[in-house]
Amino acid sequence: MRLEQIVAQLGGRLIGDGSVEILQVGALSSAGRGQISFLTNPKYRAQLKTTHASAVIVSEKNASDTEIPRIVHANPYAYYARVTALLNPPPTRAQRVHETAVVLSPLPVSVTIDAHVVVGRRVCLGENVVLYPGCVIGDDVSIGADTVIYPNVVIYPRCVIGARTIIHAGAVIGSDGFGFAKEGECWVKIPQIGRVVIGDDVEIGANTSIDRGALDDTVIGNDVKLDNQIQIAHNVRIGDHSAMAGCVGVAGSTTFGKRCTVGGAGMISGHLEIGDDVHVSGGTLVGKNLKQPGQYTAVFPLEPHIDWLQNAAHLKRLAKLAARVEELEKKLEDMSKTQ
Amino acid sequence: MRLEQIVAQLGGRLIGDGSVEILQVGALSSAGRGQISFLTNPKYRAQLKTTHASAVIVSEKNASDTEIPRIVHANPYAYYARVTALLNPPPTRAQRVHETAVVLSPLPVSVTIDAHVVVGRRVCLGENVVLYPGCVIGDDVSIGADTVIYPNVVIYPRCVIGARTIIHAGAVIGSDGFGFAKEGECWVKIPQIGRVVIGDDVEIGANTSIDRGALDDTVIGNDVKLDNQIQIAHNVRIGDHSAMAGCVGVAGSTTFGKRCTVGGAGMISGHLEIGDDVHVSGGTLVGKNLKQPGQYTAVFPLEPHIDWLQNAAHLKRLAKLAARVEELEKKLEDMSKTQ
Amino acid sequence: MRLEQIVAQLGGRLIGDGSVEILQVGALSSAGRGQISFLTNPKYRAQLKTTHASAVIVSEKNASDTEIPRIVHANPYAYYARVTALLNPPPTRAQRVHETAVVLSPLPVSVTIDAHVVVGRRVCLGENVVLYPGCVIGDDVSIGADTVIYPNVVIYPRCVIGARTIIHAGAVIGSDGFGFAKEGECWVKIPQIGRVVIGDDVEIGANTSIDRGALDDTVIGNDVKLDNQIQIAHNVRIGDHSAMAGCVGVAGSTTFGKRCTVGGAGMISGHLEIGDDVHVSGGTLVGKNLKQPGQYTAVFPLEPHIDWLQNAAHLKRLAKLAARVEELEKKLEDMSKTQ
Repeated sequence: MRLEQIVAQLGGRLIGDGSVEILQVGALSSAGRGQISFLTNPKYRAQLKTTHASAVIVSEKNASDTEIPRIVHANPYAYYARVTALLNPPPTRAQRVHETAVVLSPLPVSVTIDAHVVVGRRVCLGENVVLYPGCVIGDDVSIGADTVIYPNVVIYPRCVIGARTIIHAGAVIGSDGFGFAKEGECWVKIPQIGRVVIGDDVEIGANTSIDRGALDDTVIGNDVKLDNQIQIAHNVRIGDHSAMAGCVGVAGSTTFGKRCTVGGAGMISGHLEIGDDVHVSGGTLVGKNLKQPGQYTAVFPLEPHIDWLQNAAHLKRLAKLAARVEELEKKLEDMSKTQ
Repeated sequence: MRLEQIVAQLGGRLIGDGSVEILQVGALSSAGRGQISFLTNPKYRAQLKTTHASAVIVSEKNASDTEIPRIVHANPYAYYARVTALLNPPPTRAQRVHETAVVLSPLPVSVTIDAHVVVGRRVCLGENVVLYPGCVIGDDVSIGADTVIYPNVVIYPRCVIGARTIIHAGAVIGSDGFGFAKEGECWVKIPQIGRVVIGDDVEIGANTSIDRGALDDTVIGNDVKLDNQIQIAHNVRIGDHSAMAGCVGVAGSTTFGKRCTVGGAGMISGHLEIGDDVHVSGGTLVGKNLKQPGQYTAVFPLEPHIDWLQNAAHLKRLAKLAARVEELEKKLEDMSKTQ
Repeated sequence: MRLEQIVAQLGGRLIGDGSVEILQVGALSSAGRGQISFLTNPKYRAQLKTTHASAVIVSEKNASDTEIPRIVHANPYAYYARVTALLNPPPTRAQRVHETAVVLSPLPVSVTIDAHVVVGRRVCLGENVVLYPGCVIGDDVSIGADTVIYPNVVIYPRCVIGARTIIHAGAVIGSDGFGFAKEGECWVKIPQIGRVVIGDDVEIGANTSIDRGALDDTVIGNDVKLDNQIQIAHNVRIGDHSAMAGCVGVAGSTTFGKRCTVGGAGMISGHLEIGDDVHVSGGTLVGKNLKQPGQYTAVFPLEPHIDWLQNAAHLKRLAKLAARVEELEKKLEDMSKTQ
């Protein structure tokens, strides 16, 4: 693809030779002939001088930092994402229902149902839905147009998945929430009769699980991105454009506003209200409502084990240390008076 | 279903019009006509006055707090769990072996084996067992009566699953424990020849994994409830009636007593003894034996990131701070003497 | 198997009656007739006197601590691992392609492809590869000789798996890395065009996920052992002979040297360099480069909940406490001068 063809399709301002051939994307430091790279982080600006890329994507303020053919755009990283998609189209898949699939619902002709898939009764699939091998779609599920579901995903009955959503292999949507009543020393299961309702343009990572609601639904908003190994408990609600990194857990009935992020292994307790634009650092346990936007953190600082041993031991005596300091303050005050 | 029919089946004391029609359960705040709700948390007592539910389940002490038809019972939450089950029976499943299943063992006629299931050799299934699509049951596995296993669960050879147990989609039971001997810089695998033995009335969450024992078995007691994304390592033993929330990990050979709970993302080190009635808070790492009942916690307190930066920096100098306080105490003591 | 036959196959020095029959391995404390045990931990040396094992494996220095038939070897634990393998050979599997498998590539005759497996186009399998039921192997994947893949594993297109590797049930290899560019409040997906490249003699646990690289590959070295429920993000590189316990997460582009270990639920931030022989304690979050070998820890110390409440509250005022101590030091200094 020629550079000028990319600009014709994706916009931006072309500077330099538009006829240069672009085959693939690459990092500034490693890209070679036929590759297009990009600059967003000013830290790497010097690499603009040394890169062997055939073209680069830069913002207006870096437009004259290089001589090589370039595309100037307000958001080089998003532009780069689109170029990557343009140069790496998804494999074309035969639109058909594989002979080993078990399908109990009528389907649009544009869908692709791969080997050993099971589609239950009264399932509603949008146009161009792709179900990779081994997926199990429960009765009464609805899946929006252009959604792609990778192998061995399980969607329990009655769940709703939006359009243009991607669900990675091994994810489980709609399993029972963890709800039990205590009776003596025994647990009585509370049937989980809500659903999982997932919006449009969502991505859900490999082996992530999202439980169905107890009474009401578990709701994942539009453009929410969930990484791998995440656990979303029953009746959680996640606002539009939020993103959570790998190994995050969100306990039951907690509500997130819009544009929130949670770093890897962040853990959010149940029944909390997290407002819009809240950012939880990786490894942080959140145990209270967070209604103000901002970044919140709770991580023990890393140390060589031998130093940690000492500081951790003193941490267990911190309340006593504070009392000793208070005592010192009083004594010193008394001494000042008597002097 | 009429309210009096519910009482006839589940017990409790009926006050008010027993002929009212009950179609579904609901929360006090949102329930409407045809729905039954319940009160356990005194915080919500005022809602008894305003709810639009057609009936409620209350304890003796709240019996006269409302005029609407009500069921009085010692444990309204457990009663509510049973009403939910009564009003939401599981879908009836055709008792049959799907033509795409591969079954190498004789089976009772009452079982349901769905599409693409694999049942190995010498497998023993109890009456009414349900295996959803894509489950793989290894050779010599035994599964008790009325157990339900959701799609794409894998049970390795020789494991034992009790009766009335529920295993959610994507769970893996009986994978090899993580056992290696070091030889130079290389690892030598120690074959894991124990089993996983799971009791009756257990529930295991989506994408949870339980490793088989190295020599002896990994044992999950009766009425144990494990949420999603949990990792149980080899030779762990969990006592009856214990419950663990999502993302918990238990390392090898640790033993739990009865009625223990672990909050979400709690992590338990290996080779520990945890007694009866121990409760580990969410996000807490347990690194020592806990023989006394009670609740244990180890969580860094949450703060705005900017405050955390300061406090965490001082935490790395805590041992030095304690030494400085001790020094101050000595000096003050000396000054007192010399005065 | 007679003890002398074991020595003939695995080496070591035999002391005592080599004709004793050995059927299985066992722990010193519980082994009985026909079982062989071992001693490595000096803590258990006394059990050499009381064990009912028919034979033991000991090091040179414990060779005369017992009268029972014994094998003397420099590394009794590794020897024990090999004896366990010898006495517990893996089940022989029919070398064949199950009639329900969907295979779109030519295969060596020595492979075992079980029920409902899907093997894509241009897949290259080595000799003796075993694919258990329900595995889905994407197009252009390569798998080395003698590798065993347990049920319902998914390997995305173009990934490379080495020889003698074991992948446990439910693992996902090659799902998209978590890469999005922000545009306004929306996320633009960055197609992930790298691969996952896994070395020889690797073991990957149940329900573990390893993402494919964004541009370059995610690389798992030789003899790396990953436990269950682990998340490896895009472009991570893990050096040879490293091992990670259950529930570990490694964020994007972090590089590990050789012979590293990470304890259970250890979490490693992105874009870090971890050197050779670094050992991260369980539950520890690593947020900076670790170039020096050694053990590193960051774990809040466990306490009864009531004590934790106090100490944690003071931790949030630690910077203030340190300031108060500094103030005290100044005052005391001033008082000393004025005296």
